[in-house]
Amino acid sequence: MPKMSAQEFQALIDAELPLVPLFGIRTERLGRGEAVMRMAFNDALVRPGGTIAGPALMGLADVTMYAVVLSLVGRVELAVTTNLTIHFLRKPPPADVLAEGRILKLGKRLAVGEVLLYSDGQADVVAHVTGTYSVPPAGDHSKAPLP
Amino acid sequence: MPKMSAQEFQALIDAELPLVPLFGIRTERLGRGEAVMRMAFNDALVRPGGTIAGPALMGLADVTMYAVVLSLVGRVELAVTTNLTIHFLRKPPPADVLAEGRILKLGKRLAVGEVLLYSDGQADVVAHVTGTYSVPPAGDHSKAPLP
Amino acid sequence: MPKMSAQEFQALIDAELPLVPLFGIRTERLGRGEAVMRMAFNDALVRPGGTIAGPALMGLADVTMYAVVLSLVGRVELAVTTNLTIHFLRKPPPADVLAEGRILKLGKRLAVGEVLLYSDGQADVVAHVTGTYSVPPAGDHSKAPLP
Amino acid sequence: MPKMSAQEFQALIDAELPLVPLFGIRTERLGRGEAVMRMAFNDALVRPGGTIAGPALMGLADVTMYAVVLSLVGRVELAVTTNLTIHFLRKPPPADVLAEGRILKLGKRLAVGEVLLYSDGQADVVAHVTGTYSVPPAGDHSKAPLP
Repeated sequence: MPKMSAQEFQALIDAELPLVPLFGIRTERLGRGEAVMRMAFNDALVRPGGTIAGPALMGLADVTMYAVVLSLVGRVELAVTTNLTIHFLRKPPPADVLAEGRILKLGKRLAVGEVLLYSDGQADVVAHVTGTYSVPPAGDHSKAPLP
Repeated sequence: MPKMSAQEFQALIDAELPLVPLFGIRTERLGRGEAVMRMAFNDALVRPGGTIAGPALMGLADVTMYAVVLSLVGRVELAVTTNLTIHFLRKPPPADVLAEGRILKLGKRLAVGEVLLYSDGQADVVAHVTGTYSVPPAGDHSKAPLP
Repeated sequence: MPKMSAQEFQALIDAELPLVPLFGIRTERLGRGEAVMRMAFNDALVRPGGTIAGPALMGLADVTMYAVVLSLVGRVELAVTTNLTIHFLRKPPPADVLAEGRILKLGKRLAVGEVLLYSDGQADVVAHVTGTYSVPPAGDHSKAPLP
Repeated sequence: MPKMSAQEFQALIDAELPLVPLFGIRTERLGRGEAVMRMAFNDALVRPGGTIAGPALMGLADVTMYAVVLSLVGRVELAVTTNLTIHFLRKPPPADVLAEGRILKLGKRLAVGEVLLYSDGQADVVAHVTGTYSVPPAGDHSKAPLP
């Protein structure tokens, strides 16, 4: 069982992160150490040529990493991104973007995860992201078995 | 001389990138292979604790890289980010964020640059970014001497 | 079918890359856009505490990316790494290290791939790597369908 | 004053890291939060075309980051790399490689730094590296003022 439900996580990010409603990001599914998020297509995110702006994709990936981490450690507001690397692979067409995130390593102090972004209904990866979150030292999260 | 003026670059991004007016990004200075951009403080970018959202910092860095690249190759709309790595170093307080970008390498096909983000009036780096842009093959940009 | 066999790739790297025999890197399997490499355990690669040196893991990952790329474009000696990001996740014990690489995107000019490193016989990922290779423009590799 | 001298650091890495004598890495200068290292030219590091192997450059950068971190926290053997991103910018000719590292942020648990690699006697950057080290929690290193 994840330490937060999809509904709880959505309520948290709607309240905490103004870019979430702006970008139209929704929690589709939250499991232990994995998350699926959706960013609704939105004219405000489009670049010329009909593709979706890079910062919107980065924002979606960052929120997805946050979901992955909180699914394991629960509501820890001090969890913060320490680094993020994104490779843009294909220009996403004007459509919803889906983000599939999973944990790679949950340590006592750092969590590392991976997010793949897809255009809705397409098999090819649009962008690949790895990121690290710093998690507060209280509570040794690394003892809990991962899926 | 840069291949675009600060005014021309600002007009381009205002027209092309909807996130630019949303984030309040302005071109402060554009030189050959270097750029200074400013993101005005804006309540829509704030996270709890009064710090500025990571995706806004990533967006600012990405636009700054774009400025650095176009200062060298001119208005090339097909220039696209291929990857970006950001390290978040300190939580920026609620204030304007300044981005200082410079080119590390301009090749025939790829441009690599670096961006440092600062809070206005502070000496410590808030975030460090490296990124790669793909530039169209027409015109061998690598021949032009860099500063 | 890959454009090189495992034997051909091994012969190439044995001849070209002095670090390959030094690190004891072997090609286990080469498919279209995927590769499995093995680095034999070797006292020269050990750090205090019995773990394997980071640069050896980075070298193994880089060679694995090279295998993934050449499996798709054939023997192209001008293919060069343009960037590499590694996350070290767990300290590998003194044992062989296996690297599983796959292509994420093969474009006309850039190839992006991902490599996961494991300790032989262990399920947990030891390190996660993404990297970009620049491939010479002659021959439009992006037309060939990927697996 | 750095918490280790260049001589002490060299002795530490000669004893601890077998790749250091193999790659011919020497500590040229160690300051508080900054280091200059040299990798002697060595036929074992060469690739066809006379350029230096990527893994040797990555190894040099990693050791330089280690020097930067230990200059601030002293001899802490549990300091380990958690991630490293390298951009290869130019093919280094067959010559010594110099690495200039500096700290970007020293926190209680993480240290982030940057390394620029040069060919001896050349002004252009050969590779740009950012990396993160995890430092043991004992001792709050973040209180010490940086240069």
